[in-house]
Amino acid sequence: MRQAGRALPEYRRVRGDEGLLESLMRPDLAVEVTLQPVRRYGVDAAIVFSDIVVPPAATGFGVDIKSGVGPVVEKPFRSAADLERVRPFDVEADAPWLIETVRILARELTIPLIGFAGAPFTVASYLIEGRPSRDYVQTKTLMLADTALWLALLDRLADQAIASAEAQIAAGAQAVQLFDSWAGALDPATYERFVLPATTKVLAALASSGVPLIYFGVGTGELIGMIPGAGATVVGVDWRVPLGVARERTGGSVALQGNLDPAFCVAGWEAAAPAALRILHEARDSGVDGHIFNLGHGVMPETDPDVLARIVDLVHSFERSR
Amino acid sequence: MRQAGRALPEYRRVRGDEGLLESLMRPDLAVEVTLQPVRRYGVDAAIVFSDIVVPPAATGFGVDIKSGVGPVVEKPFRSAADLERVRPFDVEADAPWLIETVRILARELTIPLIGFAGAPFTVASYLIEGRPSRDYVQTKTLMLADTALWLALLDRLADQAIASAEAQIAAGAQAVQLFDSWAGALDPATYERFVLPATTKVLAALASSGVPLIYFGVGTGELIGMIPGAGATVVGVDWRVPLGVARERTGGSVALQGNLDPAFCVAGWEAAAPAALRILHEARDSGVDGHIFNLGHGVMPETDPDVLARIVDLVHSFERSR
Repeated sequence: MRQAGRALPEYRRVRGDEGLLESLMRPDLAVEVTLQPVRRYGVDAAIVFSDIVVPPAATGFGVDIKSGVGPVVEKPFRSAADLERVRPFDVEADAPWLIETVRILARELTIPLIGFAGAPFTVASYLIEGRPSRDYVQTKTLMLADTALWLALLDRLADQAIASAEAQIAAGAQAVQLFDSWAGALDPATYERFVLPATTKVLAALASSGVPLIYFGVGTGELIGMIPGAGATVVGVDWRVPLGVARERTGGSVALQGNLDPAFCVAGWEAAAPAALRILHEARDSGVDGHIFNLGHGVMPETDPDVLARIVDLVHSFERSR
Repeated sequence: MRQAGRALPEYRRVRGDEGLLESLMRPDLAVEVTLQPVRRYGVDAAIVFSDIVVPPAATGFGVDIKSGVGPVVEKPFRSAADLERVRPFDVEADAPWLIETVRILARELTIPLIGFAGAPFTVASYLIEGRPSRDYVQTKTLMLADTALWLALLDRLADQAIASAEAQIAAGAQAVQLFDSWAGALDPATYERFVLPATTKVLAALASSGVPLIYFGVGTGELIGMIPGAGATVVGVDWRVPLGVARERTGGSVALQGNLDPAFCVAGWEAAAPAALRILHEARDSGVDGHIFNLGHGVMPETDPDVLARIVDLVHSFERSR
């Protein structure tokens, strides 16, 4: 469960007034935040506390993560002159704290650790829009009106994602999740032409590591058919796509991750439990080859942690009963 | 093209400082705004200038449409006590200006006039959230935690939509578009159980009128398979679902409307034209039985009207060449 921490009082306590990016740069804090939901919920894997804008932030693009807003860019990406601000991510020099955090976690955890990487399209959308967007007009405009520049940007962001993921794997991450959170803003033909090459570059570069590669985006029901071919071994889907449908579209060759609507956990246990069971049955009955139960998006801050704890127990009981 | 006016200088001129709801209440203004894109673009149908919150606003629920924000509710819907604030919509008494506007338009137009209605789910989401939302947590929570109240609310909103649409048809509207803009926030099982009955009630009540009934929502790719059975004769889809895919999911029994990404029109003619042609070819080649070319969502305010004019010409040229 991504962002599982932010619903926890112990998370808010340990974060205090520290900014999100500043928290990531302190391995003691980042390790603690990663471990909190593991202790609280007894989940089967941990994902390193990170953010998709870490590479541009660590390489000096000028990104901050504002509380209650999200990533905000001081000088958004606008023209070819901005390309030099998207420089190679030398993780050891630029973000030694990331390597240190992953090393400590790999040593302390008895469950698998998932590394964290932002996919080129979604990172680009933040750099171009300058802040979270509803319609991605500026992103799409740059993509269509200056395609050469767009592809050059995505290629550089692919390199940053590869460097970040490789460093995390080398430090002990046993899987990587590539977050293409907002790729669902695109129609399939546009995704295929303007984004898939960069997605594929990242996944292909990480294939030799042998670790599972999870690709996730929101509203990507029409895109997921392309993702196994791009090299992902696990496809995450939000709650809109039933897992049986996701299995058909992905050809049955990959594992699936998802897909409980996080809002149902806010609505309470009585609402969330039947929906969770429906998903477990759907995965089993439709012959999904490997299902990682998860929410279909990040945990909402107003979620009652007890509901999440009971959902984890429910999933474990279901698995034991099979 | 919905919201085609707001990209036009003549629209901004005629609206001036008048509030949106206040503009709708003035038939001279509402007629003029409806006609502006018809004159400017030469489109093949007009949609009455309206808003999905007209019935609750006109029956005194306490709704305003704030510039740059959208519908804002003074006292959001929270409990059974609020149900009495969702009273029957007596269009002649509550919104005579709506009837007057439609009458004038039906008389003046030489092309079909589409009536405008908000679907129960989407109207409910505004009444409950109190303002535009990203995640619809409060809506989903009420739906799941107090299902009886939810269904009672949707039933009343269905009655309001029926009253509104029937009055517009009686005044001369030759089709009705039911806007369920945010239904795509729901997974299919949840939509089927908690929303489809109210959608079906509206469409079934309007069936006897014999006019085409268009159902539209954003991100509804996984829901559209249910819509022909609910009684729609046209299904609108956003740009995420290729028309060939939409045809398969809707069983080929309905016409389709859509589905150019409105952001492409902002990006300019060079970006929009090939995408528009792709859609026209897709509709033709996949055997869609009746295609209404449209954008996949409302026109963005920053769109250059000349791009839209050229898109309309392109569609007409394509049709003439068939």
